[in-house]
Amino acid sequence: MTSESGEHSDAPGGDPVWWGWGAAEAHHPLPAAVRDLLAALGIAARPSPPVDLADVILAPARLPVEVLIELRAVVGADHVLEDREARVRHCRGRSTVDLLRLRAGDASDAPDVVVVPADHAQVLAVLRICSHHRVIVVPFGGGTSVVGGLVPSTPTGTSPADVPADAHIGVVALDLRRLDSVREVDPVSGTAVLGAGLRGPAAEALLAEHGLTLGHVPQSWEYATIGGFAATRSSGQASAGYGRFDQLVTGLRVATPVGTWEPGRVPASAAGPDLRQLALGSEGAFGVITEVRVRVRPLPRRRRFEGWRVANLAAGLDLLRELAQRDLLPTVCRLSDEVETAAGLANAVTAGTDVTVPATSAVTPTSLPVIAGCYLLTGYEGGDADVTERATAVGTVITAAGGLPLGEGVGQDWLAGRFHAPYLRDALLDEGILAETLETAAYWRDVARLYAAVGRAVTDAIESDGSPAVVLCHVSHVYPAGASLYFTIVCAQGPDPISRWSRAKQAAGDAIMANGGTITHHHAVGTEHRPWVRAEIGDVGVTVLRAVKAALDPAGILNPGILLPPQAE
Amino acid sequence: MTSESGEHSDAPGGDPVWWGWGAAEAHHPLPAAVRDLLAALGIAARPSPPVDLADVILAPARLPVEVLIELRAVVGADHVLEDREARVRHCRGRSTVDLLRLRAGDASDAPDVVVVPADHAQVLAVLRICSHHRVIVVPFGGGTSVVGGLVPSTPTGTSPADVPADAHIGVVALDLRRLDSVREVDPVSGTAVLGAGLRGPAAEALLAEHGLTLGHVPQSWEYATIGGFAATRSSGQASAGYGRFDQLVTGLRVATPVGTWEPGRVPASAAGPDLRQLALGSEGAFGVITEVRVRVRPLPRRRRFEGWRVANLAAGLDLLRELAQRDLLPTVCRLSDEVETAAGLANAVTAGTDVTVPATSAVTPTSLPVIAGCYLLTGYEGGDADVTERATAVGTVITAAGGLPLGEGVGQDWLAGRFHAPYLRDALLDEGILAETLETAAYWRDVARLYAAVGRAVTDAIESDGSPAVVLCHVSHVYPAGASLYFTIVCAQGPDPISRWSRAKQAAGDAIMANGGTITHHHAVGTEHRPWVRAEIGDVGVTVLRAVKAALDPAGILNPGILLPPQAE
Repeated sequence: MTSESGEHSDAPGGDPVWWGWGAAEAHHPLPAAVRDLLAALGIAARPSPPVDLADVILAPARLPVEVLIELRAVVGADHVLEDREARVRHCRGRSTVDLLRLRAGDASDAPDVVVVPADHAQVLAVLRICSHHRVIVVPFGGGTSVVGGLVPSTPTGTSPADVPADAHIGVVALDLRRLDSVREVDPVSGTAVLGAGLRGPAAEALLAEHGLTLGHVPQSWEYATIGGFAATRSSGQASAGYGRFDQLVTGLRVATPVGTWEPGRVPASAAGPDLRQLALGSEGAFGVITEVRVRVRPLPRRRRFEGWRVANLAAGLDLLRELAQRDLLPTVCRLSDEVETAAGLANAVTAGTDVTVPATSAVTPTSLPVIAGCYLLTGYEGGDADVTERATAVGTVITAAGGLPLGEGVGQDWLAGRFHAPYLRDALLDEGILAETLETAAYWRDVARLYAAVGRAVTDAIESDGSPAVVLCHVSHVYPAGASLYFTIVCAQGPDPISRWSRAKQAAGDAIMANGGTITHHHAVGTEHRPWVRAEIGDVGVTVLRAVKAALDPAGILNPGILLPPQAE
Repeated sequence: MTSESGEHSDAPGGDPVWWGWGAAEAHHPLPAAVRDLLAALGIAARPSPPVDLADVILAPARLPVEVLIELRAVVGADHVLEDREARVRHCRGRSTVDLLRLRAGDASDAPDVVVVPADHAQVLAVLRICSHHRVIVVPFGGGTSVVGGLVPSTPTGTSPADVPADAHIGVVALDLRRLDSVREVDPVSGTAVLGAGLRGPAAEALLAEHGLTLGHVPQSWEYATIGGFAATRSSGQASAGYGRFDQLVTGLRVATPVGTWEPGRVPASAAGPDLRQLALGSEGAFGVITEVRVRVRPLPRRRRFEGWRVANLAAGLDLLRELAQRDLLPTVCRLSDEVETAAGLANAVTAGTDVTVPATSAVTPTSLPVIAGCYLLTGYEGGDADVTERATAVGTVITAAGGLPLGEGVGQDWLAGRFHAPYLRDALLDEGILAETLETAAYWRDVARLYAAVGRAVTDAIESDGSPAVVLCHVSHVYPAGASLYFTIVCAQGPDPISRWSRAKQAAGDAIMANGGTITHHHAVGTEHRPWVRAEIGDVGVTVLRAVKAALDPAGILNPGILLPPQAE
């Protein structure tokens, strides 16, 4: 491992468990301290382990043998997987609802077959076969969607966006793991062409051989892929410094049923609309992204992460707004609300400093002193002088706004635990506790109102049956004109956890749309956010997306049921 | 006028002459020094004045009276203009070919009528009427297109993008000048909602009342409009500091024949493709942009512009690349090649310091000392300390690369003359000399090759009949991954200047596409660049644009003949 990914060298690189996140050896039981804390909040634990793989229920595979023969002829028989484990592993993504269903043994909408093409040409060929036979194709990168982006549902309707299920004869999961090369590095222009199937760590390791980094590190980085980052408009924890993934992409290669689409000829152009931004965020509904050209930068020589305490969320928001509007943002910045800060503190204090607690997104630095207010993390990556200079400039602004320094130790703690939250979720699920996240963004003028409305809506929805909920929030993506909000919700699973969460999600989505938010800032639409897409982009926006879908995917085989709202709505 | 636009307070605010650029009182004869310089280069002057307005040839207006009655009912009779001058003033844009034709008295493709709606609702109503009657609508902002973006041509074909001319019964120029308000200022989020018909100076003046600036200043700023900036992906001379216009827009309101389209709910989202970037650059083919929400910033407290000399173009390119990749760009940066530098110098020396020579884009600072190499302009806008700090940091890099400071005087000269080139073009046209520009952009690795290829292609094309040409070039837009190239070409008009220019343009376009360039970096496609669009965006890209066009403009009335390549190609 290289210096860029050196601090993640203990990150599990193997396949994740079929029922959760990450490799088995990276899983640990729920720390007693967390269990005690939740119990004190009225959230009771109750063992709730996953079923055995052998007990998972799968529908019989439907794909006719003549289609399998054609697919094998394209990718080779070894790359057409029909076994139980392969099908279960490609069933849905990694939302909490996805995991609850899997853990209960429900793989009813697993794909019929998993096809693993070697290159762009094979992807094109698979799309031709599937278009001809009307077989649904669900592009599969890291399988880390948390919005139902991998569910091959086929709702009713007559457009290509939602062809009736009975018009299709089966579902192929198109696993892109073999598209895993760095095809080109252009050190002069500072770009590289990356295969869509490259996972975060592999992409960084290959770029590091050239002294370069992509710098795109979402929480799902260990398993998520380059193609997935593009298809879902991932932002990454370092969006303030490196930019969102959609800002890093200068060109894409997309296999569509009507041929190869390569939007983005040069870094900037006025030759009509920017079609890159139509491919980015298309979630596999318009085509299969097979490679992207991205901006890359020299590996940072230095990293500096530090913690601050600000008086309250309002003061923190003002501070982040000032930094963003003065073009003075750190590489990473992250502001926890009072509840998330207190949860992290309580957790740390209860756990004691000798216990390594997997950090939640709620930030659980074990060395954080017990103080009130809100925790602010700032991180800098770059050259030595550059990091010092920026940290000094930002520190001056934070101090002037009343922020108190907590030192680099808590910053390093965050860095060490930045990918741990999904592992902790598995431990919580094992104990009958539901943990899920949702996120949004808004103009600065709307952020505080949106924060209050969503928190209230989610809490009320969950607590309507008397079950207490804890709602934590942080801001982790900041722009001159606005910011994101990332909520973590924890409650008991109760007798019907999926209904409980659905109620909360519905309430949150409605509150978001009523208060100037976007239904998703960096998780994508999938099936989960589809009910709000029409409110988000309007009737004409839906018309535009449908027209593009119909033109590129006339047979309606590509990931139906995601992104586009049902026609009949 | 405010402090922001104070230095432009002498800019003519009145209507431009019908045959050229800017108000009559801003026009001056070609300076003798320029004439002598061109003569020395073998480019002979010969008086070539425009015809009288009364002698301009117009086709009879074709619009049936029932359509006129419906249009008058929507916008009021006073805002449906049928007179000769209104029609001539809305005939084409301001490319050199457009002006050559107008000056010769050819207004054969003037619109039949000019309609001036008051607001978004009226635009929608006009589009409904024109869709129903199949009347072509050409949105008209400042009328400053230099790529034939306002030519209501109707080439043969059967798709909505190119409905045969005989399928339409006339052409409406939709003049957006009355959409000229700042509808909202949000100082917290740092955004403002600007009417599409606002010209550059008016927008800045209205924002300055709030202490804000847009900072978007293309050479056409005096006459170009907010809607035009959006529809054509304008970049602006200060793109390095403020960003391209497409980076400033957080939301748009577009009137389409199928209803109102409002892409962009929040500053950043993952709710599907970014449809803002589909509306930006749509050149009136998908709808009429009626307002945009843009990022605004505090008015700069200080401006500092200074000149540098670098050894040659290659050294200058390396320098700009370093600055861009280190995120250390000035607000404005502009590097002239050796020819442009020498032309500016020769011009300045010949003219003498007591003559105010309208500066070409070639930079004509009268105080520039005579030196070899390339001229580099750097400009900074911001707070006092901020400007000093950035200028020092950039200056250190330039000096380390061997650049020699020329002081702030030459920088101020450039600032004072930044809008003068189109006036000088009118003076050149008066004297029988052809002057035109073209531009492109590429990845850094391709820039030097592209520069050489385009220069050679244009020179060879013009000189093939023995007439000498001068080709100047500068870089004015710089990105981490690449840069733009802006060429100015000067030659004698000769007996058939339009053919002469067309030859050069064809050769340039082919050289651009063969050497990794984009057919346009900030001038848009219009009719001029249409032949290269398929090479630029590919067959699938064309399919996408056609699908969107068909969905939003089913009757094919919106600015046909621009942007989309002919279907039969």
